[in-house]
Amino acid sequence: MSAAIDFYFEFSSPYGYFAAERVEALAERHGRTVDWHPVLLGVIFKSTGMAPLTQVPIKKDYVRRDWERISRLTGIPFKMPSVFPIASQNPARAVLFVARSDEAAAKQLALALYRAYFVDNKNIGEVDVVREVAAAQGLDADAITEGMADPAVKDQLKHEVGAAEARGVFGSPFVFVDGEPFWGFDRFDMVDDWLKRGGF
Amino acid sequence: MSAAIDFYFEFSSPYGYFAAERVEALAERHGRTVDWHPVLLGVIFKSTGMAPLTQVPIKKDYVRRDWERISRLTGIPFKMPSVFPIASQNPARAVLFVARSDEAAAKQLALALYRAYFVDNKNIGEVDVVREVAAAQGLDADAITEGMADPAVKDQLKHEVGAAEARGVFGSPFVFVDGEPFWGFDRFDMVDDWLKRGGF
Repeated sequence: MSAAIDFYFEFSSPYGYFAAERVEALAERHGRTVDWHPVLLGVIFKSTGMAPLTQVPIKKDYVRRDWERISRLTGIPFKMPSVFPIASQNPARAVLFVARSDEAAAKQLALALYRAYFVDNKNIGEVDVVREVAAAQGLDADAITEGMADPAVKDQLKHEVGAAEARGVFGSPFVFVDGEPFWGFDRFDMVDDWLKRGGF
Repeated sequence: MSAAIDFYFEFSSPYGYFAAERVEALAERHGRTVDWHPVLLGVIFKSTGMAPLTQVPIKKDYVRRDWERISRLTGIPFKMPSVFPIASQNPARAVLFVARSDEAAAKQLALALYRAYFVDNKNIGEVDVVREVAAAQGLDADAITEGMADPAVKDQLKHEVGAAEARGVFGSPFVFVDGEPFWGFDRFDMVDDWLKRGGF
C-alpha cells in the first residue's frame, strides 16, 4: 500500500475548493488515498509576511475571472460568495473534530462545507451554518458545536497549522506526494504525471 | 487576420523564460502572431505592494523545485543562475531598441538573452553580456549599447511598464488574448483552449 497523499486546504480558498472536488479521484486513479488537512492560511500568511490574494487589488479582479474560467472549463459549479474571504476556524475545527471518530465523514463534511460556501453562498464561518451543513450530512450538529468550542480541538488546529507551515505549506491547495510538494490546483496535472511515472 | 497575442515577460523570471520558449508555437497553432513586451516586474511589485517570490523564504525553495520539474517535464533546458534575480533594465532596453527597426530580430534577441541567463548562467543584467549575446545573434553590439543608454529608449521602457501595470499585468509571464488576461506559464493550456474555442 502506497503512502497517502497529504492534501492541505483553506476553506476561504476557491482554488482549494476546486482541488477538493478532484483530489480523491486523482488519488484513486493511482491506488492512493488522501489525508485531508484543513489549515488557516491567514495565520501562515501573517507568520511568513505574505499578502492574501484579496489584499492585492491588481490581483483581485484577475483571480475572480480565473475562478470563473476554471469553473466553466472543469464543470465544477462556482458562485462568488457575497462574504469573502471569511475566518475559517469554525469549519476547520468541525472537520478535525469529526475526523477523530470518522475520517470519511470528515471528508464528506469538508466537501459539503466548501459547496455550501462556493455554490450556495452560505457563510460557513458561522457556527449555525456549520451546524446546518453538518446536519444535512446526517451528522450530530450538537456534538459538532461542542467540538468546535472544545479547547483540545482548538489546540489541535493550531498545532496542525504550525506543522503545515513547518512542512512548507504556504498556499491552498497544497499537496505532498511522497514528500514532493505541489502548490495550486493548476499543479494537479503535474501531480497526476508524478503519480503515473513515480516521479520524474 | 486575428489580433496579436500580447506577451509580457520579465527577464529575471524563470516562468517567463519557459513561456518565451513556447509562446510563438502556441500562437502559430491558432494562426496568431505575438507581440513581445519586456517589463520590469520589480517596478510593478513596488508600486502594487507585492513581494517577489524570492523575498518570501518559504516560497523560494518551492519555486526552485518547481522550475526544475517544469524543465524535466517540458524538456526545456534550465539551470539556476548563480546571480538571481537581476536588474533587467539592460536586456529589456536592448530588446525595445532592436524592435524599433526589426521585430523578428528583437524576439530572437529576447529568447537568446533568456537562454544565456537560464541555461548558460550569464548575467544578462550586465551591458557587456547583452553585447556579447547580441553579437552572437548577428546584431550590431555597438548600436545596441548606444540604444541601451539612449534616454528615449529608457523613457520608452518606463512607459511600457506603466502601460502594462495600467492594463493589469502583475506577474511574468502575462498574456492577453483579445483582452482576456492569463497569468503564468501554467495557464498556457488554458490559453490554448481559449484560442481553440474562441473563448469559453
